Amino acid sequence: MTNDVITAAMLAIGDELLSGRTKDKNIGHLADILTAVGIDLEEVRIVPDDEDRIVEALNALRQRYDYVFTSGGIGPTHDDITADAIAKAFGVPCEHDPKALELLGASYAARGIEFTEARKRMARMPRGAEHIDNPVSTAPGFRIGNVHVMAGVPSIFQAMLDNVVPTLKVGKQLLSRTIDCPFGEGTIAEPLAEIQKQYPQAIIGSYPKYQDGTFWTELVVRARDLDVLVAAETAVQSMIASLHQNNANRSAPSGV
Amino acid sequence: MTNDVITAAMLAIGDELLSGRTKDKNIGHLADILTAVGIDLEEVRIVPDDEDRIVEALNALRQRYDYVFTSGGIGPTHDDITADAIAKAFGVPCEHDPKALELLGASYAARGIEFTEARKRMARMPRGAEHIDNPVSTAPGFRIGNVHVMAGVPSIFQAMLDNVVPTLKVGKQLLSRTIDCPFGEGTIAEPLAEIQKQYPQAIIGSYPKYQDGTFWTELVVRARDLDVLVAAETAVQSMIASLHQNNANRSAPSGV
Repeated sequence: MTNDVITAAMLAIGDELLSGRTKDKNIGHLADILTAVGIDLEEVRIVPDDEDRIVEALNALRQRYDYVFTSGGIGPTHDDITADAIAKAFGVPCEHDPKALELLGASYAARGIEFTEARKRMARMPRGAEHIDNPVSTAPGFRIGNVHVMAGVPSIFQAMLDNVVPTLKVGKQLLSRTIDCPFGEGTIAEPLAEIQKQYPQAIIGSYPKYQDGTFWTELVVRARDLDVLVAAETAVQSMIASLHQNNANRSAPSGV
Repeated sequence: MTNDVITAAMLAIGDELLSGRTKDKNIGHLADILTAVGIDLEEVRIVPDDEDRIVEALNALRQRYDYVFTSGGIGPTHDDITADAIAKAFGVPCEHDPKALELLGASYAARGIEFTEARKRMARMPRGAEHIDNPVSTAPGFRIGNVHVMAGVPSIFQAMLDNVVPTLKVGKQLLSRTIDCPFGEGTIAEPLAEIQKQYPQAIIGSYPKYQDGTFWTELVVRARDLDVLVAAETAVQSMIASLHQNNANRSAPSGV
């Protein structure tokens, strides 16, 4: 199985995510993209703009998962400390990258803006890091080891991720089928647990819904193997048909 | 300072958050509410429906922070394993709670629905846990030690949190002022870093914005002490006035 499963974690960095001032939009986007290409996002952490906390979380995650993706803290202001923290986590110096200096210098020159020390901060990265292109606002993200460091602004995060995805090794995609089930969780729990036992290679999730006074359930069957997926999905559909039959016989009320 | 600062972490539980199928809405809500009452949310983790992962994350968080809030995994289906995982983390048995059984039993009886074993699963909690009322769909959340275990469905999570908040000890609120700054981060980075140095008790955050071809910045000054807040905010306003003056003198272009 080892090559079938490629794992990832996300580290979202920023006080503003923890104060509620900014509602994160990057976690869900990363989850969508990784799932689509066949990489399993297995953990997310959100930490403040605090060097020790970033270093600690990054070192825990990068040792555990195949890939880590970070968001936030790579701008020019004093609260942008991600590059320094990542360098510290890897035990390498954080320094001005010549290629990034050239790129940013040219961009500012073209706009007639002075390339100040503060602006040069955006060219700092851990020694040995490779650029992640930023087609939105020039200042690059970077990759070091299995860690991809990207901006927090969603449009830039997304553009950087688009550049990163083709470079990643991917696993066997976790296929997924969603089945709307008109019965509440309390009604389906026992037969559904039996189906899960019968198909241990499938992952069956149940998500309760409540609308207009009625409980229903969204069932999600996932598997890497199409045969397993189809078999488990068929079993779930049979369970629903059988519950309909029982209900028609008894005309009993349904509920969660 | 110790009593001024009360810390918290959130543990969001659920495969669906990591696959992208569900976009979390509870983290931002909890962040808003805790900030408003004077509790600092300092870390968030998202983990899958996996007992070992839940136990590991919960034990790390509950030892480090004053409070932990969890979301998800407390329904009746096989993939709802949060109560068992929390019990395991605390080293106590997970068992049917008599009061919860009574509450759920009465609710099902009133609706003429059979109170099956599966539905009774929702009455299971770690021994010694106290109820968190669920005004939406009866099945209670619970508190054990400093951990508050709540539903993943946002309307229920929010209703449970409303019941929990009055029971929490709170710190001195982190006051906050937001200042729209018409200059990009590259322009303000140096003077802003000076202000941060001058007011170490304030936390100054800078959030870049890009709209209609113009870079501007949202600056957020935070402090527990009103005098510090006002002084740091005044310094930021003076910085902006001074940059306007410089711009008027030079009529130089501005940019990030």
